[in-house]
Amino acid sequence: MLIHPVILCGGSGTRLWPMSRGGYPKQYLKLTGENTLVQQTALRLRGIADVASPIVVTNNEQRFLVAEQLRQIGTTTSSIVLEPVSRNTAPAIAIAALMALRESPESLLLVLPSDHVIAGEAAFVKAAEAAAQIAKDGYLVTFGITPTEAHTGYGYIRAGAQLLDDTQAFAVDTFVEKPDTATAQRFLADGGYYWNSGMFMLKASTFMEELRTFEPEIAQQAELALKAAKHDNDFVRLDAEAFSASPNVSVDHAVMEKTRRAAVIAVSDLGWNDIGSWTALAEIAARDGEGNALLGDVLTESVSNSYIRAEHRLVAAIGLDNVVIVETADAVLVAHRDQAQDVKKIVAQLNAMGRHESVTHRRVVRPWGSYEGIDSGDRFQVKRIEVSPGAQLSLQMHHHRAEHWIVVKGTALVTNGENETILTENQSTYIPLGVTHRLMNPGKIPLELIEVQSGAYLGEDDIVRFEDTYGRVPKA
Amino acid sequence: MLIHPVILCGGSGTRLWPMSRGGYPKQYLKLTGENTLVQQTALRLRGIADVASPIVVTNNEQRFLVAEQLRQIGTTTSSIVLEPVSRNTAPAIAIAALMALRESPESLLLVLPSDHVIAGEAAFVKAAEAAAQIAKDGYLVTFGITPTEAHTGYGYIRAGAQLLDDTQAFAVDTFVEKPDTATAQRFLADGGYYWNSGMFMLKASTFMEELRTFEPEIAQQAELALKAAKHDNDFVRLDAEAFSASPNVSVDHAVMEKTRRAAVIAVSDLGWNDIGSWTALAEIAARDGEGNALLGDVLTESVSNSYIRAEHRLVAAIGLDNVVIVETADAVLVAHRDQAQDVKKIVAQLNAMGRHESVTHRRVVRPWGSYEGIDSGDRFQVKRIEVSPGAQLSLQMHHHRAEHWIVVKGTALVTNGENETILTENQSTYIPLGVTHRLMNPGKIPLELIEVQSGAYLGEDDIVRFEDTYGRVPKA
Repeated sequence: MLIHPVILCGGSGTRLWPMSRGGYPKQYLKLTGENTLVQQTALRLRGIADVASPIVVTNNEQRFLVAEQLRQIGTTTSSIVLEPVSRNTAPAIAIAALMALRESPESLLLVLPSDHVIAGEAAFVKAAEAAAQIAKDGYLVTFGITPTEAHTGYGYIRAGAQLLDDTQAFAVDTFVEKPDTATAQRFLADGGYYWNSGMFMLKASTFMEELRTFEPEIAQQAELALKAAKHDNDFVRLDAEAFSASPNVSVDHAVMEKTRRAAVIAVSDLGWNDIGSWTALAEIAARDGEGNALLGDVLTESVSNSYIRAEHRLVAAIGLDNVVIVETADAVLVAHRDQAQDVKKIVAQLNAMGRHESVTHRRVVRPWGSYEGIDSGDRFQVKRIEVSPGAQLSLQMHHHRAEHWIVVKGTALVTNGENETILTENQSTYIPLGVTHRLMNPGKIPLELIEVQSGAYLGEDDIVRFEDTYGRVPKA
Repeated sequence: MLIHPVILCGGSGTRLWPMSRGGYPKQYLKLTGENTLVQQTALRLRGIADVASPIVVTNNEQRFLVAEQLRQIGTTTSSIVLEPVSRNTAPAIAIAALMALRESPESLLLVLPSDHVIAGEAAFVKAAEAAAQIAKDGYLVTFGITPTEAHTGYGYIRAGAQLLDDTQAFAVDTFVEKPDTATAQRFLADGGYYWNSGMFMLKASTFMEELRTFEPEIAQQAELALKAAKHDNDFVRLDAEAFSASPNVSVDHAVMEKTRRAAVIAVSDLGWNDIGSWTALAEIAARDGEGNALLGDVLTESVSNSYIRAEHRLVAAIGLDNVVIVETADAVLVAHRDQAQDVKKIVAQLNAMGRHESVTHRRVVRPWGSYEGIDSGDRFQVKRIEVSPGAQLSLQMHHHRAEHWIVVKGTALVTNGENETILTENQSTYIPLGVTHRLMNPGKIPLELIEVQSGAYLGEDDIVRFEDTYGRVPKA
């Protein structure tokens, strides 16, 4: 009975803008501590007995991001499944269930969103093991969080009969949609209600049985999409046509609310938070004597109960109470702490304006490393490029721009037309417009270089790729 | 009877940090409209009859800044006087008076701080001409602003007998130090009290007579400092020893409060503001229907009565009332509007920490143009350099760094050791460590280039200058 963790990474979080972006959702951010949320999600699996390498479900845009972040913490994935389109959680879990069933008919799935905080790692391991005990008997187990306040932002689960004597495991009586304040207060007073955390322990075979009963089309399209999937490096690329045809339904609606085999493990000591807003993050952050969480280069005078985060430069605050300030390289958010959830309205404004600040950061992560625009003007732009040891960019050509490269750290192997040269710190080269070129880091330390581009058109889409290590050359 | 404007530029304003800096005070900022405050000060002289070119009093650090800003608006200065140390306004005005007296014994001085806003230019011209009428009869005339509120941040002037029938010119009864709120309210209710604006119309000969009577040492040291002054391009460099020996006294304390020849021109329609804080600037800024002044790239949701200024990137504000947000390339200020004056405490913190953000901007103005640090890391930094048409940097050498230059706009004439070459857009050169070099813009449009520096030490002080157009080569 092996537990297969399923880490759901498909989300495109904008609720923590400007740190989270459409192309860089919150699971990839270091919001609490030294690791990103998806790294924390993978790391908290370590203590669980009989746990397999995780199946990661994500999309094409995020594939290198998640692969690199898991590589950094030494996590080997079983597969990284790429959804061609987003179809909510039921189809994603169905794919994972089918993959796990190939290993064994007894396989369990531990389904985990990638963007939650869980402070109590030991409690999580204990809860997961208790959930596994019930799941192996055919229950579909959800993790219910004992409420600490009358929160109106979560769905609730009403517990029924106790299933095991020595654990907090109950049959599910009913699922309740996000309540109003009065109802949430009643739930809190009455007891026996739990927040629906979105984490599950499922017996794969039971899940598929129930799915075939309640949402046969999801089950069928998942089978087709997986059967026709293409394997590309570490990635499993689901068949686009089949997967797109699947109904777009959450696992709650598709199965959990309908099945008679739902159970809930009630946990009160997880320190769980789904960080749905800056307000939520401010609540769990460590605070000083004035109730402030000050992160980065922050100076204050007469500031209280505020969350101030400087990612990139100095932030000075004076005479403020209950504010959230988040500073990044290209955008600054200042919000009243009680209205930080309205950041979605700012993101909507940015999207309507077609602006990049809702989608990308100034620093852009690529499979070979990253680049960051550091200056631009009429007919030129300047980038700082970092190439990981052993990595290489595609063999490429630009129609509209020439490039100067100056190595400032490490060693570069440069293909420039017919020539190949090694450049070290403080050496430079020039790539004329139209010349085929390639950049590689043959060394053991990161390569950093400054690129100055000149030309009439400097868009990222002026690139013709001839060869690419990362499968980014369009098929002829 | 010629009026000599005296523009006092010595201040080191930090009250509008982070836009104003120790090395870039507020008179050099575009705070209201298209011109900087010192430019506005020079431009509002245009309508006055019999006005000479201004005498500018500043210091060594600001000399190129003020010269360049006045050049940009086509103002010819009579002299730019450099104070070796700051000795408050009495010695500065004494120097100007002595210079004006060389022209004529009848000379008048129109003394103007360089960092005030005056919205009513016509009223200013009218007031100046009325002041000149009284001043030529030997009065030392101060401009008194009719109070519009019980302000406790200004000194007040109590008017005595009316001097002329058809103007608001009075003998000064007494000068009153900054009052408490109750006293300020009484002044406002009683009438006949005016804010002391710090602007004066003085007969130079009368001023020197009174100064010799009340502060003979200031008069004497001014004479010595001017006599031994050195002329350096357009600059008059006062003798350091003599000027430093002068008492450090304001013109109010030294002369105006003691003389029996003080008069006040009462003006109510100047639209005068000394912009002593962001709060003051917020009050005079144009506001939208929500009472907001939004400047630059700003998005808001539910924000009111706020002053938000984005100089460099996007600022988004949500759910705020009565705040000031000022964003610059290297620092962000967020303050409650009523506590913005406490920015001085932030500046004090920065000074105590020895940080540059209280002193310099990321973009640094030089006599030949400007440079801006756009990136830096271990053993390298990247600058964007702009050289004005016809300008050149000093012939120089660095002991610890090599430089790559890539021209992105305009044309460069580069001296590199023994060679001289012309570089145009998209061409580059390399200056090895220890090689004597020079950069010049021989063209008619600004030259822009990207400089990548490599080396173990990259401080601005690693520079040996051999020749300099701007007198910056140390004397042997």
